[in-house]
Amino acid sequence: MKYGRKVVAVLEGGVEKTPPVWLMRQAGRYLPEYRELRAKAGSFWKLALTPDYAAEVTLQPIRRFGFDAAILFSDILTVPEALGQKVTFTEGEGPSLVPVTSAQGFDTNRENWSSYFEPVYEALRLTRVGLPPETTLLGFAGAPWTLATYLAAGAGGDEQKAAKLWAYRDPQGFAGLLDILGQCVAFHLIRQIDAGADAVQIFDSWASGLPAALYEQVVVEPTKKIVAQVRAARPDARIIGFPRAATLAGYESYVRATGVDAVSLDTAAPMDWAAKNLGCAVQGNLDPIALIAGGAALDRAVDNILAATAGKPHIFNLGHGILPETPIAHVEQLLKRIRA
Amino acid sequence: MKYGRKVVAVLEGGVEKTPPVWLMRQAGRYLPEYRELRAKAGSFWKLALTPDYAAEVTLQPIRRFGFDAAILFSDILTVPEALGQKVTFTEGEGPSLVPVTSAQGFDTNRENWSSYFEPVYEALRLTRVGLPPETTLLGFAGAPWTLATYLAAGAGGDEQKAAKLWAYRDPQGFAGLLDILGQCVAFHLIRQIDAGADAVQIFDSWASGLPAALYEQVVVEPTKKIVAQVRAARPDARIIGFPRAATLAGYESYVRATGVDAVSLDTAAPMDWAAKNLGCAVQGNLDPIALIAGGAALDRAVDNILAATAGKPHIFNLGHGILPETPIAHVEQLLKRIRA
Repeated sequence: MKYGRKVVAVLEGGVEKTPPVWLMRQAGRYLPEYRELRAKAGSFWKLALTPDYAAEVTLQPIRRFGFDAAILFSDILTVPEALGQKVTFTEGEGPSLVPVTSAQGFDTNRENWSSYFEPVYEALRLTRVGLPPETTLLGFAGAPWTLATYLAAGAGGDEQKAAKLWAYRDPQGFAGLLDILGQCVAFHLIRQIDAGADAVQIFDSWASGLPAALYEQVVVEPTKKIVAQVRAARPDARIIGFPRAATLAGYESYVRATGVDAVSLDTAAPMDWAAKNLGCAVQGNLDPIALIAGGAALDRAVDNILAATAGKPHIFNLGHGILPETPIAHVEQLLKRIRA
Repeated sequence: MKYGRKVVAVLEGGVEKTPPVWLMRQAGRYLPEYRELRAKAGSFWKLALTPDYAAEVTLQPIRRFGFDAAILFSDILTVPEALGQKVTFTEGEGPSLVPVTSAQGFDTNRENWSSYFEPVYEALRLTRVGLPPETTLLGFAGAPWTLATYLAAGAGGDEQKAAKLWAYRDPQGFAGLLDILGQCVAFHLIRQIDAGADAVQIFDSWASGLPAALYEQVVVEPTKKIVAQVRAARPDARIIGFPRAATLAGYESYVRATGVDAVSLDTAAPMDWAAKNLGCAVQGNLDPIALIAGGAALDRAVDNILAATAGKPHIFNLGHGILPETPIAHVEQLLKRIRA
């Protein structure tokens, strides 16, 4: 792995005077060049699973802003699809799936996983070719708990209810679901590293609101297994975890148990506390609404984060994905402020 | 104040071997007797603002379950209504308001506030008459930040975005909005105490996801002022705060700054940590989904909370409101387990 100097350096514990920066969902609807290609592709899956399109969309924000990392344009719901669970994206409505109450019908044939994921790996290889060598290339996957919330509910909305009910009523069956999801996630992360990802991020977007015991069981333990599996296969794998909006005790327990190289913090987590106490690199955690607001409030929010993380391994990012109505000028303002 | 022994004792720092228990939204749609009266009343506001109806609905769960506290059936959006901002409830859609960008048109005439709120105070008086003397009567109000999210957005959905944008772009104007809301909230809490409430709870339902500096500004500071105003007027006022899903550091800062007698914790907050570190009584924090699940999972969740709070001032409650699909038998199971 010779690429992606600055972000990788931080993941290895290095401190950069000017922290590297990338933004969650940086390849997305706030960019006119994205919207153009999205329209041309016709459907979300066509965009994500056509290597040329996915690579191009991944490169767009790098060309425009010179972010320090490119995150492959894809979706966490590729994993359910690889397992044979069809996911449909309807414009303006988010994904929908056929809800499941058991993992018994899931396709566990790894050759089928490979074939399904192949366009993702090809997109990573194409992206690497188009990327400046100093830019880190990131792969990613959804964490088992978050994937389970979609599989149990069949759609967004009250995201956690069906999965929580399943976990409470049928702990063994639910553990089986998390296990097969974890197998597929680990497989996919390893293959992304092999296809050129300098590091990978595990998104547990629905990690909030879980009672401590349940959080350990459905967020920490499954992620710990994935990290161990990835590291067993690729010992120098660099992994960022994102148990979004966990409690501060939850972030601590996650880092301690999983051994991730960095943890991504949500908008509310105090970065001074995180940088001092978590014992790994920290990523985050600008409020995406502050980026929409711009002006003095944005500068102040950026300065707060820079001050809180000074002298510690830190990757500047948002606390959650960039929103479609974000003005491009504010992203420019943000980068100027960080790099000043 | 001679009433409401057990909950009040805990608010004064007492430890009960069997903690007192009540549930947020205990007067609500999961009860057939509630649904019947709701249908008879015709509209939500008619139910909430007709003293006989509101008192009856408040008493229903006490008769059925013998909870240790009754919380007056009302709504946090009475405060915007008292300020002249009309709120409409549409069946199955939640409240809607005309969004505001300034507090300039708000009605600040306290006599008008009094007239608007009078049915609430009458309902409290009627409830007190119907309540066993050992049952605590609770009043409540929404906190300024949470009320502001509704006023800025005009409706639910992406609850915080409009209010956050306002706070970032126009900090002074937004502080003015919080200030007038806080005035009306303090007024309303004092009058509820005068009408017979043994204690009051301040609901800040949208306190999550706020960057630390913004949280201090919009959650902690306005609540601190309210508590001070209420205590200046009624020195023995007992106040429970609920900055829902704040970070653990956020809960600490809230309790320290406001001096509330108890803090209500969301489902994810570790109760052992809270009981040990917050320096006030703690309330919570059963997952409402565990109450729907019932069975062994419910017993285990209850036992976890009881073990975590043993020997500390604790009021058993949910981490969030009870959900309409909650089986009545599970509420009975819960009470049996706590009181066993």
